[in-house]
Amino acid sequence: MQLNNEPRLAVVLLSGGLDSATTLAWAIAQGYECHTISFNYGQRHAAELLAAERLSRRLGALTHRVVTIDLAQMGGSALTDASIPVPETESSGIPLTYVPARNTVFLSYSLALAEVLTARHIFIGVNAVDYSGYPDCRPEFIEAFEKMANLATKAGVEGQSVKIHAPLQFLSKAEIIQTGMRLGVDFSQTVSCYQADDEGKACGVCDACRLRHEGFVQAGVADPTHYTAAKNVTK
Amino acid sequence: MQLNNEPRLAVVLLSGGLDSATTLAWAIAQGYECHTISFNYGQRHAAELLAAERLSRRLGALTHRVVTIDLAQMGGSALTDASIPVPETESSGIPLTYVPARNTVFLSYSLALAEVLTARHIFIGVNAVDYSGYPDCRPEFIEAFEKMANLATKAGVEGQSVKIHAPLQFLSKAEIIQTGMRLGVDFSQTVSCYQADDEGKACGVCDACRLRHEGFVQAGVADPTHYTAAKNVTK
Repeated sequence: MQLNNEPRLAVVLLSGGLDSATTLAWAIAQGYECHTISFNYGQRHAAELLAAERLSRRLGALTHRVVTIDLAQMGGSALTDASIPVPETESSGIPLTYVPARNTVFLSYSLALAEVLTARHIFIGVNAVDYSGYPDCRPEFIEAFEKMANLATKAGVEGQSVKIHAPLQFLSKAEIIQTGMRLGVDFSQTVSCYQADDEGKACGVCDACRLRHEGFVQAGVADPTHYTAAKNVTK
Repeated sequence: MQLNNEPRLAVVLLSGGLDSATTLAWAIAQGYECHTISFNYGQRHAAELLAAERLSRRLGALTHRVVTIDLAQMGGSALTDASIPVPETESSGIPLTYVPARNTVFLSYSLALAEVLTARHIFIGVNAVDYSGYPDCRPEFIEAFEKMANLATKAGVEGQSVKIHAPLQFLSKAEIIQTGMRLGVDFSQTVSCYQADDEGKACGVCDACRLRHEGFVQAGVADPTHYTAAKNVTK
């Protein structure tokens, strides 16, 4: 039960991309007091972490943390393993850029942080429509994580539930963009590209760039993404 | 379905303590080819990590990994936060030494490793009898994690299940000790103490030391633990 005067503390996973920025703006608009958490997991570029820090501050989160995690040493993904090239063509099934158990690891840390902060709300920007074949973006995964979380923690033992919110779950990329714009998100400050350069400029050819650009086209909004000169998805 | 000639690859969580050493010996005795994983999460002592490495090699695991995780910066536990003293008296309810969402984070990494290794078995030495009030040692937590894991991963999507094994779940500490001895575990090489010294010598007064010593007494086995001279639980 939510008491009227009780602050609604939340932990928000913030990657620096379009979806998580919209999720943070959504949570703040709903009255949640938000602590953001980003993960440094051996991405090839740090631009999205810088974007996350900037977005967290501008959108009004209370605190921002970067947690360094050791996923890279396990290999198995083009995003963290330099021996696997990032694919430039559309893939079918589960993409090569899948990081093993990524959202499970990210949500587990968020759960730990929520427990320390006595926050009972966790927001994650996963999306089932444009989910690109990642199993840990599916609604049934989020539901199962929430059930597990309520058995894992003191809050669960004490009868207080932990809620995992995925407000973008059933929105298309275009609808996410429209929602974010209504909430005042400056998408030029977000980085979605799998291989952005040091300044956060996007390649324009990877899966993430293509999905993102198609979203802007479908939303009828000019794409504000900063692309590298050489490769521009809008050309 | 298990094919006869298929190696049964497993990831085994190994803390360096009595329970996880017995779990590893158990898994190997059952014919699993084991990869061990330990976590450096800002414990006050590194002795248990050294013990884990030694036990992994002696018991016959294929590989051993130490994953450094950033749980300490979140605070909230006497095990990782130097500002909270380790309690020396018996506590009721959830102990101060509880690390937020620890087993959730540990199992999440183990799941990531299992996915990379294409292992479908994860072993964890949690125990519901002597579980000391940790919510994430309960059988219902393990079951919920397994369900979530099967929705989180490629294996789950491809219809291959991930199994979380907790073979010690319903054993008393005395029964665990008897099992380990039958399987050839040298318990003098294990470290359970919350505040072991650099050589792995145990304090003899913390909850973990008391539970462990009572286990040896109840099992009718001489306690092989190396205690510091000053504090000896057996005195």
